[in-house]
Amino acid sequence: MSTPHIERGLAATPGQPTQGPLTHEELQLAGRNHSMPLEALHDDLTPAGLHYLLIHFDIPHVSLETWRLRLGGAVADSLELSLDDLKARPAVTMPVTLECAGNGRSLLQPRPLSQPWVLGAVGTAEWTGTPLAPLLEEAGLASDAVELVFTGADSGIQGGVEEPYARSLTIEEAMHPEVMLVYAMNGQPLPLQHGFPLRLLVPGWYGMASVKWLTSIEAVTTRFMGYQQAVAYHYLQGPDGPGLPVTHIRVRSLMVPPGIPDFFTRRRVVDAGPVMLHGRAWSGHGDVERVEVGIDGTWMPAHLDPPVGDFAWRSWSMVWVANKGDHVLRCRAMDSSGALQPTEQVWNYQGIGNNMAQRVEVTVR
Amino acid sequence: MSTPHIERGLAATPGQPTQGPLTHEELQLAGRNHSMPLEALHDDLTPAGLHYLLIHFDIPHVSLETWRLRLGGAVADSLELSLDDLKARPAVTMPVTLECAGNGRSLLQPRPLSQPWVLGAVGTAEWTGTPLAPLLEEAGLASDAVELVFTGADSGIQGGVEEPYARSLTIEEAMHPEVMLVYAMNGQPLPLQHGFPLRLLVPGWYGMASVKWLTSIEAVTTRFMGYQQAVAYHYLQGPDGPGLPVTHIRVRSLMVPPGIPDFFTRRRVVDAGPVMLHGRAWSGHGDVERVEVGIDGTWMPAHLDPPVGDFAWRSWSMVWVANKGDHVLRCRAMDSSGALQPTEQVWNYQGIGNNMAQRVEVTVR
Repeated sequence: MSTPHIERGLAATPGQPTQGPLTHEELQLAGRNHSMPLEALHDDLTPAGLHYLLIHFDIPHVSLETWRLRLGGAVADSLELSLDDLKARPAVTMPVTLECAGNGRSLLQPRPLSQPWVLGAVGTAEWTGTPLAPLLEEAGLASDAVELVFTGADSGIQGGVEEPYARSLTIEEAMHPEVMLVYAMNGQPLPLQHGFPLRLLVPGWYGMASVKWLTSIEAVTTRFMGYQQAVAYHYLQGPDGPGLPVTHIRVRSLMVPPGIPDFFTRRRVVDAGPVMLHGRAWSGHGDVERVEVGIDGTWMPAHLDPPVGDFAWRSWSMVWVANKGDHVLRCRAMDSSGALQPTEQVWNYQGIGNNMAQRVEVTVR
Repeated sequence: MSTPHIERGLAATPGQPTQGPLTHEELQLAGRNHSMPLEALHDDLTPAGLHYLLIHFDIPHVSLETWRLRLGGAVADSLELSLDDLKARPAVTMPVTLECAGNGRSLLQPRPLSQPWVLGAVGTAEWTGTPLAPLLEEAGLASDAVELVFTGADSGIQGGVEEPYARSLTIEEAMHPEVMLVYAMNGQPLPLQHGFPLRLLVPGWYGMASVKWLTSIEAVTTRFMGYQQAVAYHYLQGPDGPGLPVTHIRVRSLMVPPGIPDFFTRRRVVDAGPVMLHGRAWSGHGDVERVEVGIDGTWMPAHLDPPVGDFAWRSWSMVWVANKGDHVLRCRAMDSSGALQPTEQVWNYQGIGNNMAQRVEVTVR
């Protein structure tokens, strides 16, 4: 079937949120979907093997010989493009921070049942591709086209609905100059797991919009009601929709946990004295304007470096003079839209956009 | 401190094995330590971003300018080598299957508390480096040297012991011609997370022996008693040692789960008719000689392709004519040492080497 059975009232998550222990299903997802170890915040760019990955179904094997991108539907001229055709078009390389909309989900109480991210579902890579808007202009969108549907080669079942992974953008959203079709990541061909040979890249949006293994773009004259668009990825307070669709990345900062870890608990041990705390901050709603570090509940401003790019994180740092004992470190960012990370959870039914300020417990010796 | 307090009776795992639910600590580890999605068994070589990763502490940042490999201790001539020095030596490129000793741990009952691998802690890469034995000959091992200690740049606390990650090999083990110091993976410089700039590679052994971020090799005249050598990585039936040290990889086969998955449960749905089942099999104790596929309890031989290399997995396949209904698929391999994967768990205290035959539940429609 190609449209989800929303009328069945299926929740986007497979069950009620729970106060209960982690399930085997969540463990399987945690094993499959890689997070970025937070020490990788050290670098401007995240290597492909450390960048977060959220893959709904299986990684598909796409043969370059037969693969074509089809651009059709409500357009004057359908296009069918090989990867070479796309590479022959004007190329742009741009650092972009991508984050999974579910980042921080496992920290919510009660816990929505889905991929149980802790905090590492983020990464910044330098993506190379060709802007989408000129392609759409070339195809000639029909005057009654309202959305573009982007479909990947990956397919499976979610919430009882069998579909390929597909998401839509309105014409206006799709025409933004930063929206690209990308075929390289950090100067290398797109890795298999990041969507080889081609993925959509929607800078500033949570990662669900950047459809991997892209096979078709279809202009449609009515709103797309696929599962990943109409059911999943909504801010909801309970199982019943519609709720607000998830779009741009909420402001967030993260810290490289200082000192050394305990293998099992990951608790940090730090030597007394000056400690350089540092991390990254980003937002899809505006520029990051301020980062504050909380030491045992007292907030202090951090130094900010320039952003790595218009749609990429910026580095922050602050020297902390660590005294012996147990301490709680936090960080929070504010963006130019005035949004500030909350220090308490702001719960929602699908566990989306939980940008509550990070909390790092350390023992200073 | 540089030697672990074994006399304190610390268990290698942080607590008693449990029948209980997954802990937040295990979830944190599952998020940090990447497993290989099983569909990556499709390819001879695993891309760096899909290869499994087990990192005990934090990924260290090593500067190539100051980094040197120090080979010293009980040798006639200590050596200090830059990466260029190592690259100038004879180079070997070899596909090697690496697997974490804890692969399959989370499937044990009761469950040892550590990294809760399901089944994907494996990968095969083409590694490039220089054999270790000629370097040892050049340095001239003292006649009373018994072991070589390999120490990484990563450091932390495990079981109450603070140490850099370090493992030893006997002289005889270290002199095997396939033991290498590697600086490239799949034709690229060693990725940060795989040990940049240099890691030890001990083909045929579980991954704990292949020390990442290698900084020193020290010939010693008494057995090394570091935590990762003397406490962790032992086959034990309870908290008290010594038990048998973990060395070579036990025979295992894995299957690419057929059909399409459900996002949350990962349960497979398959269309009725002929289905090509396929996967990989490997062993560190000899050649894989047989793979059998179990369909609802009936075992049948699979076709075997030649191994990818002397220390790498081989492909297997079998056509299954799938009839409607629910089915349980399994696979098991036997190696030239006569070892056969068990169909029931063989439990041990640290959850090591659990090579129980994989079980895949499918619904055929």
